[in-house]
Amino acid sequence: MKLAIVGATGQTGSVIVDALLKSTTPKFEILALTRPSSLQKPEVVDLGKRGVAIVAADLGGTEDELAKLLKGTDIVISAIYGGSVAAELSLINASKAAGVKRYIPCFFATVAAPKGALMLRDMKEDVLNHIKNIFLPYTVIDVGWWYQVNLPRLPSGRIDYVAMETTDGIAGDGDVPFALTDLRDVGRYVARIIADPRTLNRMVFAYNEVFTHSQLYGLLEEISGEKLERRYVRAEAIAASIAEIEAAEPSPDSVEFVTLAKYQYWYSCGVRGDNTPEYARYLGYITTKELYPDMEWISLAAYFQDVIGGKGERVYKHLQDLLTVSNAKKA
Amino acid sequence: MKLAIVGATGQTGSVIVDALLKSTTPKFEILALTRPSSLQKPEVVDLGKRGVAIVAADLGGTEDELAKLLKGTDIVISAIYGGSVAAELSLINASKAAGVKRYIPCFFATVAAPKGALMLRDMKEDVLNHIKNIFLPYTVIDVGWWYQVNLPRLPSGRIDYVAMETTDGIAGDGDVPFALTDLRDVGRYVARIIADPRTLNRMVFAYNEVFTHSQLYGLLEEISGEKLERRYVRAEAIAASIAEIEAAEPSPDSVEFVTLAKYQYWYSCGVRGDNTPEYARYLGYITTKELYPDMEWISLAAYFQDVIGGKGERVYKHLQDLLTVSNAKKA
Repeated sequence: MKLAIVGATGQTGSVIVDALLKSTTPKFEILALTRPSSLQKPEVVDLGKRGVAIVAADLGGTEDELAKLLKGTDIVISAIYGGSVAAELSLINASKAAGVKRYIPCFFATVAAPKGALMLRDMKEDVLNHIKNIFLPYTVIDVGWWYQVNLPRLPSGRIDYVAMETTDGIAGDGDVPFALTDLRDVGRYVARIIADPRTLNRMVFAYNEVFTHSQLYGLLEEISGEKLERRYVRAEAIAASIAEIEAAEPSPDSVEFVTLAKYQYWYSCGVRGDNTPEYARYLGYITTKELYPDMEWISLAAYFQDVIGGKGERVYKHLQDLLTVSNAKKA
Repeated sequence: MKLAIVGATGQTGSVIVDALLKSTTPKFEILALTRPSSLQKPEVVDLGKRGVAIVAADLGGTEDELAKLLKGTDIVISAIYGGSVAAELSLINASKAAGVKRYIPCFFATVAAPKGALMLRDMKEDVLNHIKNIFLPYTVIDVGWWYQVNLPRLPSGRIDYVAMETTDGIAGDGDVPFALTDLRDVGRYVARIIADPRTLNRMVFAYNEVFTHSQLYGLLEEISGEKLERRYVRAEAIAASIAEIEAAEPSPDSVEFVTLAKYQYWYSCGVRGDNTPEYARYLGYITTKELYPDMEWISLAAYFQDVIGGKGERVYKHLQDLLTVSNAKKA
């Protein structure tokens, strides 16, 4: 199966490529569409060594050029930065022109209303509507909230090496359930979903387990033996922060944009309760629980044990650096 | 089953109410939400005599008042004018507050892309997104293109009594298939769909038959024994007309808006080929062919025979009058 991917070295793209390279049924022949300026980056060179064909491609170029690159490709995956999904439109048109059999737009996030809950989701809906407008076969894949961005710190500091700056509170009263997935499982889900005829022209929700924030804190206390501080952020306070940042119309590459996205995720998952299998089914998703009842996944408890055992890995390193610099400036 | 409807005396609403009144399994208890200024209209008084409860309701009023009226209602149907669907939002919010089990937004048209193909469909998509945002159970029902608005005139003039002003050409080359439905069947489809648990939170496409314009003209020639004139309107000419009217931003109650909608339907159904069962399935619709394989419908041939036999009925009488006045002014 011939597959092309944009964003192969990103946080989501890299776990997808890892899983695709491991897959044997089907076997994927992978093409990484790479910005000309990134061809010499170590992670790109490394991909090449691992059997991924690296091709220079510019999403800002002509659709004809992109279509030529995609000739004969079965599946195209976009795993670009969520703030730049509008840049996908040329790739989508080129995929249509090239006769691509299935296009996977950059979703890979929590379940939310198509419009009005998350700015990032709103932007993705516009992309999906364009796909539908040109009758391009597609599959939308959402994956819930990552364990990795929901890891509270421990008072002892022993998991600070992996905890994110952004995980510093509980949204609302902490009693709203949401679906969680280990980032390390995302690639395996994607590899299976994109080769499944049942998921063509459908939205699929891949997730591991459902927890409330209170339950998640309780579980980490149980496993770590430490007592966690619970800093609740009231729904009204989150809404006020969202309104304040929105009013300033931050650009997609700013710290403010990232902070806005964080608060919107909090509100959608922790207050509105959007990110659940029940709401997903209502919105038309099929879930991986129905599709692949045999499939194994990493439990939240196992993830906590890994992290406490020193086997955790920090995600969004560049984003962490950005936030650290920004906070240092404020201080 | 308790049901409330808005637009009960309109072109679509009235065939729906007729079918609901005839239905025995389930039996519907019908409430017609009616503008206070329309309570004394003959068609409203007539509805009351036929067993429909008439209640004064103002969609522009408070949601609390509307919610009180809807208390205990199972199903709400909106069959308001397509150009005013934004007025549904208060009814939707009230339905949520009242615990309505299924909301049927005003779709009842051809299959088209969610955005970018038909102005009316774009507006409906915004309404649907609001429904999804507040997690209100719903069913979208589209019904294809009516036989009644696709009836060409015969040179003899013998079916002019029912032909519409707007049916005066063939979009494109006439070889694009589209789905057609007899308006008289719409109510029966709706009565069945809204009581079907399989259609909850789904889009349903109800249609009778699939024809191209050329085939439709051919069939009418065969049945009437007359030779029809074929006036083809090229795709580029339709697109140019659309662009010209769009630029003037016509208000929803103007003749220009109706003309714009007509050209957009032509382009979507006759050039793009949106209004097909295949595209409907791609967009996530279930069709009545899968749902109700046993169900009978009026064929296009039978409709032509009815019309030639003097049993046709003119649709959109008010719209015809509007167009006649407008054309008279131009002449």
